[in-house]
Amino acid sequence: MNERERLEKWKDQIGKELDRVMMFWTQHSLDKDYGGFFTCLAQDGTVYDDLKYIWLQGRQVWMYCRLYRKLPRFHQQEILSAAIAGGEFLLAYACPSADSLKCAFVVTRNGQAVKIQRTIFSECFYVMAMDELWRTTHEERYKKAAEKMMDQIVHWVREDPSGLGKAELPGAAPLNAMAVPMMLLNLVDQLCEGDEDMAKKYEEVGKWSVEKIMQHLQRDGKAILENVSDQGQELPGCLGRHQNPGHAIEAGWFLLRHAIAHSDHSLAQTSVEKFMLLPFLSGWDQEYGGLFSFQDVDGHCPTQLEWNMKLWWPHTEALIAFLLAYQKTRDQRLLEHFEKICDYVFRRFSDPEQGEWFGYLNREGNVALTIKGGPFKGCFHVPRCLYMCEEILSQLLATSNKI
Amino acid sequence: MNERERLEKWKDQIGKELDRVMMFWTQHSLDKDYGGFFTCLAQDGTVYDDLKYIWLQGRQVWMYCRLYRKLPRFHQQEILSAAIAGGEFLLAYACPSADSLKCAFVVTRNGQAVKIQRTIFSECFYVMAMDELWRTTHEERYKKAAEKMMDQIVHWVREDPSGLGKAELPGAAPLNAMAVPMMLLNLVDQLCEGDEDMAKKYEEVGKWSVEKIMQHLQRDGKAILENVSDQGQELPGCLGRHQNPGHAIEAGWFLLRHAIAHSDHSLAQTSVEKFMLLPFLSGWDQEYGGLFSFQDVDGHCPTQLEWNMKLWWPHTEALIAFLLAYQKTRDQRLLEHFEKICDYVFRRFSDPEQGEWFGYLNREGNVALTIKGGPFKGCFHVPRCLYMCEEILSQLLATSNKI
Repeated sequence: MNERERLEKWKDQIGKELDRVMMFWTQHSLDKDYGGFFTCLAQDGTVYDDLKYIWLQGRQVWMYCRLYRKLPRFHQQEILSAAIAGGEFLLAYACPSADSLKCAFVVTRNGQAVKIQRTIFSECFYVMAMDELWRTTHEERYKKAAEKMMDQIVHWVREDPSGLGKAELPGAAPLNAMAVPMMLLNLVDQLCEGDEDMAKKYEEVGKWSVEKIMQHLQRDGKAILENVSDQGQELPGCLGRHQNPGHAIEAGWFLLRHAIAHSDHSLAQTSVEKFMLLPFLSGWDQEYGGLFSFQDVDGHCPTQLEWNMKLWWPHTEALIAFLLAYQKTRDQRLLEHFEKICDYVFRRFSDPEQGEWFGYLNREGNVALTIKGGPFKGCFHVPRCLYMCEEILSQLLATSNKI
Repeated sequence: MNERERLEKWKDQIGKELDRVMMFWTQHSLDKDYGGFFTCLAQDGTVYDDLKYIWLQGRQVWMYCRLYRKLPRFHQQEILSAAIAGGEFLLAYACPSADSLKCAFVVTRNGQAVKIQRTIFSECFYVMAMDELWRTTHEERYKKAAEKMMDQIVHWVREDPSGLGKAELPGAAPLNAMAVPMMLLNLVDQLCEGDEDMAKKYEEVGKWSVEKIMQHLQRDGKAILENVSDQGQELPGCLGRHQNPGHAIEAGWFLLRHAIAHSDHSLAQTSVEKFMLLPFLSGWDQEYGGLFSFQDVDGHCPTQLEWNMKLWWPHTEALIAFLLAYQKTRDQRLLEHFEKICDYVFRRFSDPEQGEWFGYLNREGNVALTIKGGPFKGCFHVPRCLYMCEEILSQLLATSNKI
């Protein structure tokens, strides 16, 4: 096959996979009584728990709106209604206290708080949901909710974290965990789409986030480390040596989108070479294929029990990263990495029977958990990846006659 | 081999294994500068992190004292000195705040708090350490520290949990998690050894703990569930269906020791049939051998990524349980289960090269993490099991001429 044929083949396969995946969620996840979504779904879609994890509620609202808004075949009333009911569920129940914007991590089916995490991530996915819901419905109250929460998050991260409820302890120095600036950069991308006022408002937050992510490039540019000090220095022990290849690669495509939007050629190059290629080459299991979940930069055995398991989301993020990088550079090596990962995911994660991917394989690539959704896996990484890849492949095929 | 020969063979093998295991810890884990123990040890004993997890500090102090006190070949100044230095480290640094007995979960090498959990377990292992240190050194201040902390724990558990720092949330009803009454029962056993005053003082706590553990026997006596309501009712969802076979079996031997001490024949029978045999028969992997880490009582796939991994501690607890049950009943079936588990652990967990067992195998029984110690594995389950089994085997061989 020539290059055009390869891209056409992937676009066709990925588009069909997106339809199958979304069919699974629309058939099985809707809570018609209380609004919001069931995400604890067995292989065949059976609901095995009705708890509602706020991360996953926010992500599914975002995903539904984005598909409704961007892909004509998902412009369906059913999808819009479910997204709105999910958004209203978040507005009503995400924040357990009337005095604070702190969100729960998980609530009961009818919205009562079960657990609150001392982090910002429930809040971040709330912002994504509200902003995308505004773009889809044009209702201003969603936009306001998104902006208010975003400003609260930025305050917690950059001014005063005390509202998160985390005690300051003498042995735990302030940390730059890559997840935090990554999420902020992703939110800036989300909030600023086609909106000059917002782009201006959050320009500095975006710049700060990029700088904070860059601090994770350590060891003379040879490794991405997940945790560094607040000043960007390497930390001692397991915490400092911890690597998460999928996360680094995800940061890579967040950075690359920022670089493209700001015509920053140097940042684009760093994002591909350092945040995509480095962790992909060191994180790919040469023996069984797939990306390791965690590594130790000095080669010690990680203490996380799942370190050598193959999880769905590092692979979806790598697909987005390498296809976007290929679109930007037309470097054949990047397309080959994309295809290598495609081969792995369609053989290992995709479920020909039921739609939506398996999430958790053992090192050898066999299914270890048969669930399709759970406390950390919902309607997000797989359809986001398939939608973004379909979009990029369409652009590649449309804009380039050379292919 | 006849039965006596089998018991002699196991006693010999287990005694030698205990020596090899303890050699590993005495060679590699002592922090000579700050007191306490390194527990993040690689396969060969290399320290890969110097954080000190309070659970593991307390457990190692307990283990050292117990062996020093009970087995003449461990009656060594080196072991006593290390235990005392560990105890002093705990007295100095376990409680980060002068106003509270709340312990840290993990501290830096020199004792600065890194993380505090909103549970009672650091405190429980502190009690075990202090009580055993008192029994070994006869220094009253250790006994006082143990009793003061024990009374605080009982207050948190039975009167007012607010000092643990956990927010009450409308969706999270008070829970009877089996770990809590189990730990209390284990502490009562520890504190009351040969001490009538303490036995009297904690008799009611022991009784309460047994009742709370019994609430976990559900489904008409057909299953042990890890979490039930505060009133002993089954809970909905994954939380309610969650099973931890190793934990149930460990509860089994805690109950059996209590039953033996109180000449409670009915409790002894329940502990063996319901808390040992039920979870052993349903939790043993018929395909690859070994005990699953987690199960769902209705056969759903657990959401814990490590559900089908084989961890060291369920197997050590099962060895203690079935040997003690055999000692009590002389039921051959129980000895056969003990031997089946022995065969598995010596083939899979034991490391002929370096002493101390591997802790984390994949489902197939191959080593998944090469570490010998980490945030949750220290000098405790393996040597406690080997010491207790050696002691029981000695008693069996000494007291019964019929064997």
